[in-house]
Amino acid sequence: MGKGRLEAFSDGVIAIIITIMVLELKVPHGTEWETLHPLIPVFLSYVLSFVFVGIYWNNHHHMLHATRQVNGGILWANLHLLFWLSLIPFVTSWMGENHFAALPVALYGTVLLMAACAYFILSRALIALHGKGSPLALALGGDFKGKVSILVYAVAIPLSFVNAWMAIALYVSVASMWLLPDRRIENTLVR
Amino acid sequence: MGKGRLEAFSDGVIAIIITIMVLELKVPHGTEWETLHPLIPVFLSYVLSFVFVGIYWNNHHHMLHATRQVNGGILWANLHLLFWLSLIPFVTSWMGENHFAALPVALYGTVLLMAACAYFILSRALIALHGKGSPLALALGGDFKGKVSILVYAVAIPLSFVNAWMAIALYVSVASMWLLPDRRIENTLVR
Amino acid sequence: MGKGRLEAFSDGVIAIIITIMVLELKVPHGTEWETLHPLIPVFLSYVLSFVFVGIYWNNHHHMLHATRQVNGGILWANLHLLFWLSLIPFVTSWMGENHFAALPVALYGTVLLMAACAYFILSRALIALHGKGSPLALALGGDFKGKVSILVYAVAIPLSFVNAWMAIALYVSVASMWLLPDRRIENTLVR
Amino acid sequence: MGKGRLEAFSDGVIAIIITIMVLELKVPHGTEWETLHPLIPVFLSYVLSFVFVGIYWNNHHHMLHATRQVNGGILWANLHLLFWLSLIPFVTSWMGENHFAALPVALYGTVLLMAACAYFILSRALIALHGKGSPLALALGGDFKGKVSILVYAVAIPLSFVNAWMAIALYVSVASMWLLPDRRIENTLVR
Repeated sequence: MGKGRLEAFSDGVIAIIITIMVLELKVPHGTEWETLHPLIPVFLSYVLSFVFVGIYWNNHHHMLHATRQVNGGILWANLHLLFWLSLIPFVTSWMGENHFAALPVALYGTVLLMAACAYFILSRALIALHGKGSPLALALGGDFKGKVSILVYAVAIPLSFVNAWMAIALYVSVASMWLLPDRRIENTLVR
Repeated sequence: MGKGRLEAFSDGVIAIIITIMVLELKVPHGTEWETLHPLIPVFLSYVLSFVFVGIYWNNHHHMLHATRQVNGGILWANLHLLFWLSLIPFVTSWMGENHFAALPVALYGTVLLMAACAYFILSRALIALHGKGSPLALALGGDFKGKVSILVYAVAIPLSFVNAWMAIALYVSVASMWLLPDRRIENTLVR
Repeated sequence: MGKGRLEAFSDGVIAIIITIMVLELKVPHGTEWETLHPLIPVFLSYVLSFVFVGIYWNNHHHMLHATRQVNGGILWANLHLLFWLSLIPFVTSWMGENHFAALPVALYGTVLLMAACAYFILSRALIALHGKGSPLALALGGDFKGKVSILVYAVAIPLSFVNAWMAIALYVSVASMWLLPDRRIENTLVR
Repeated sequence: MGKGRLEAFSDGVIAIIITIMVLELKVPHGTEWETLHPLIPVFLSYVLSFVFVGIYWNNHHHMLHATRQVNGGILWANLHLLFWLSLIPFVTSWMGENHFAALPVALYGTVLLMAACAYFILSRALIALHGKGSPLALALGGDFKGKVSILVYAVAIPLSFVNAWMAIALYVSVASMWLLPDRRIENTLVR
C-alpha cells in the first residue's frame, strides 16, 4: 500500500491545525496599543505551538520520506498522532488566554506528552514493518531525542503546579532541541 | 479519467471535517478543573466522531486504492458521501453540548446512517464501473460490515428515544467493528 | 509550467469553502424538534451551495483534466474564480438566516453570476493558450451551458426583488442543468 | 530530499489562510442595503489581502518550480514564511473593522514586511543550496521587486501614523507591481 495519501492527509490535517490556531487571536475592539496587550500571551502561545506543530510536520516529513510502505495499523497509528495534535489549538488558547496559569500549562504539556508518545508508537510500528536492518530503522536509531522529550514533559507537567514558567522553559528547551532538523535521517539515507 | 484529484479533494474535505470539530471544544473561562467538566461530553463526542471520520478516511483510502478509474457519476457519489460527512461536526456538537439527549443522539445516528448509505452507493457505483469480476469487486465482496452497520444504525435511531446510552453503545460497537483495518482489500489485492 | 499545483491549490481552497459553510449551522440551544426549525432555511441554503460548489469542482476537474499547460495569466484567472467562490459561504449564510429575503437572494445570485463569468474567463484563457483546434477547445465547444447560466442569473437577480422564490427556482434550475456531468469533455477526449 | 511535500503543505496552509479570511465577513443582522455598509471596509481589506496571499502563492509556485531539492533549513525558512502569512487574516480583520485606522494599517504593513523578509530569506537559502550559477539563481536574479517591496513597506509603516490612506496606496502599489506574473522565472527557465 502506497504512502502517498497518508502523507497528503497528514499534510492536510497539520496544515489546518497550524492555521486555525490563529483564529484564537481574536480581533480587539479599539485601535490603541493597549488593546493589543491582552493578546500578547495568546500570541506567545501561538508562536510556541506553531513551532511545535512545525517540528512535528518536519519530523513526520523526514520519517515518511524514509518509509517504503504502510499498512492498516500504521494508518491508525498516524491518526492517533493527528488526534493529539488536533488538541493543540484548544490547549494553546486555554494557556494563552489565562496567562500561563498552572492547570492550562500542565494540560498543554500533557497533550505534548501524548503526541510525543503517539509519534514514538508510529515510529516503532514503521520499524516493525520495515525490519530492524532497514534504512528507516537505522535512520531513526534509538530515537534519543524522542525519549528525552517524553522524559522532559513528564517532569514539566507536575512542575507546572509549582512554577508554571519553569514548565514553559522546559517546553521551550524541547522545542529548541528539535528545531535543529533531524540530520540523523538526512545523513543516514543515501538517496 | 484519473482518480488523483478525487483522492486529493476527498482528503482535503475529510481533513477539514476531522479538524474543525475541535473548534467546538470552546476554551473555558477560568483555570480550575471544574471549568473543564462541561467539556467532558463534548470531548467524548469529539473522540467518537474522530474515530468515525478516521474509519471513513481509512476505508475510502482502501477502496480508492483498488480503483482503476472514475467517471462523472462517481464524482457525484463521492460528493454525496462528503456531504453527509460534513454534517458530522454539527451533530457531534449538538450531541455533546446536550449531554447525549435523545433527539441529538438520534440525529447523530441518522447522519451516520446516511453516510453509510452514501458509502454503499459509492462502492456499488465503483463496482458497476469496474465489473463484477474486477479485483475491486472481489475485494469489497458482499460488504458484510457495511450492511451490518446500516442495520445497527437503523435499530439505534429509534432506540435513542428509549435509552440514548444504548444507542451510543451501538454506535461504539459499529466503530469497534470497523477499527480493525479492512483486511479484505489488503488480502485480496496482490499489488 | 505544470498544472499540478494549480489543481492542488484549487482542490484545497474548494475543499475548505465547501466545508466551512457547515460552520454556519450554529448548534441550537435545546434538544427539541422546535430548536431545529430556525435551521431549516440555513440547511437548505447549505445544500444548494454545496451542490453549486460541487458543480464547480466537478467542472474544474474536467476542464483541467483536458489542460496540457498553464501560465501566469491562467494562475490569476483561476485565483479570480476562487475569489468569487470564497464569497459563497457568506452569501449562503446571509440568505439562509434571513429566510430567502429579496436582497440576500439577489446578492447570492450576483456571486453566482460573477463566479460563472470568472469560470468563463478561465476557460477562454485556457483555450487561447492551447489553440482553437486543441482537444480542450473542442471539448469545451461553445460553452452553451455556461452562457445559459450567466443569462439565467442575470434574469434572476432583478427578479429577486419581485419574487425571491422565483429567483431561487431559477438558481435550482441552473444547478439541475449542471448536475449532469459535463459529458462534452468526457466524450470528446480519447484518453 | 524531494520538494513534493513542501509544496503540498504550503499549498494547504496558503489555501486555508486565503479562505478563513472570509469568515471575518460576519453575516449582518437585517436584509437592507444599510446592513451591508459596515462590511465595506472589511470587504476591501479582504480583497487586498486575497490579492497579497495570491501573489505569495503565485511567486512561491514559480520559485519552487525552479527548485530541484530542499533540505532541513529550507523547510524551516518556508515555515517561517508561512508563520507571517498566517497572521494576515488577523491584521486584515483588525484593519477592516477599524476603517483603516493608523495603528492597524501600520501593523498590517509590518506583517507584510516580515512576510517579504521571510520570502527573501527563503529565496536566498534556495540559491545557497542550488549554487549561484543554477537556473534558479539566474531566474531570481537580484530580486529587484522583492527589495523594492521591502523598502516601500518600510516607508509605509511610519507613514500610516501621518496618513493611513497614503500607506494603503503604497501597499496597493506593491500589489500592482507583483500582479504581473513573475516573467523572470518563466522566461529564464527553458523547461
